[in-house]
Amino acid sequence: MAERISVVENILGANDRLAQDNRARLDAAGVFAVNLMASPGAGKTSLIEQTLPRLAQKFRVAVVDGDIATSIDADRAAAAGASAAVQINTGGECHLDAVMLQQALNRLDLSAADLLIVENVGNLVCPAGFALGTHKSVLVASIPEGDDKPYKYPGMYRGVDVLVINKMDLLPYINFRMDYFRAGVEALNPGLVTFPLSCRTGEGLDAWINWLTQHATRNTQHLIPGT
Amino acid sequence: MAERISVVENILGANDRLAQDNRARLDAAGVFAVNLMASPGAGKTSLIEQTLPRLAQKFRVAVVDGDIATSIDADRAAAAGASAAVQINTGGECHLDAVMLQQALNRLDLSAADLLIVENVGNLVCPAGFALGTHKSVLVASIPEGDDKPYKYPGMYRGVDVLVINKMDLLPYINFRMDYFRAGVEALNPGLVTFPLSCRTGEGLDAWINWLTQHATRNTQHLIPGT
Repeated sequence: MAERISVVENILGANDRLAQDNRARLDAAGVFAVNLMASPGAGKTSLIEQTLPRLAQKFRVAVVDGDIATSIDADRAAAAGASAAVQINTGGECHLDAVMLQQALNRLDLSAADLLIVENVGNLVCPAGFALGTHKSVLVASIPEGDDKPYKYPGMYRGVDVLVINKMDLLPYINFRMDYFRAGVEALNPGLVTFPLSCRTGEGLDAWINWLTQHATRNTQHLIPGT
Repeated sequence: MAERISVVENILGANDRLAQDNRARLDAAGVFAVNLMASPGAGKTSLIEQTLPRLAQKFRVAVVDGDIATSIDADRAAAAGASAAVQINTGGECHLDAVMLQQALNRLDLSAADLLIVENVGNLVCPAGFALGTHKSVLVASIPEGDDKPYKYPGMYRGVDVLVINKMDLLPYINFRMDYFRAGVEALNPGLVTFPLSCRTGEGLDAWINWLTQHATRNTQHLIPGT
């Protein structure tokens, strides 16, 4: 057992170093990057599809999609207007890690992007344990998943910078106690920036787009001499 | 890398041996056991809540609940009429393994149970890789997760014996192409026994209950001398 633990520690250490390298590359190119995490089917790809057209006038947005298999998500991102879309198939791995993002960055022209959205593998556990080098971590929750998820997946809720609550249009059809859900979130991650929205109806998307716009602008501006 | 792979192989080998031990204990006690797997929020616990009262006249049903944290699920199973409910908190682990089930079996009186439902951690990746020793693996899919999940999580869909499609009542509110979903399932797991149902309305539950009843009866009967 001791051997196994030490190997895992070494891998995590290497991951953090590679994540720092990725961050440095993104910063040098003036690219603001978010790591989008969620349960399978919470709506990460739908959020990307709704986000890209709304940012098209302001930013060039590249997308990296992580999945066990298929290029369904990258195809959807490309169709929605991504300036570039790279699919990572992890084989059996249940999360992205910094090596995988490094390989994806090698295939992207970062000078032709302002914003990078990384769509992680659908999983509420392991992605939280592997830094990628992105600037912000965004968790997409969804109403049909149920109101107990913060309590059952505390590591994920504790570690993110932004919470999107998707599928708000399904609230009338589902027993989802928003107070109970919010209390769990607040206990784990006080003051967490939260955007309730629906990718289906478009409700609430403006606030999310504003947040992304502000952060992407700030990240780009400090790199322009004189601003 | 070679070292890491060899350690993982050793662990998987040990897991399979322990899974065989678990199976032998279940068989000796005449307990039919199912491993319930799903994405977070697909409705594993709701299915257990709907199943227990419908089996109460026929079987004593024990439940083992796996979660990263909390005893919410075991509490719900106990409230729904489980003859015994054991919660396993995995800490950070994203799946149950045979050691965890062994520990849970140690805390159960198997002679006081006919059926054991093991609720795995919500995750469409890793639980598929760890045999527990149960007799049948059941995957709970749900309509809000989307119709592309067989394509994106092939390992899970390939390895299960039964597929429950939950939240059928939400079909009118969601763009879910059942033909596309079923084609993916059929490609990975031809002829897979499938139960579309809704834990909310009760629609379709009878067929699932009949399946469970037939298997639990068969498993119990062959252990009674003379039958």
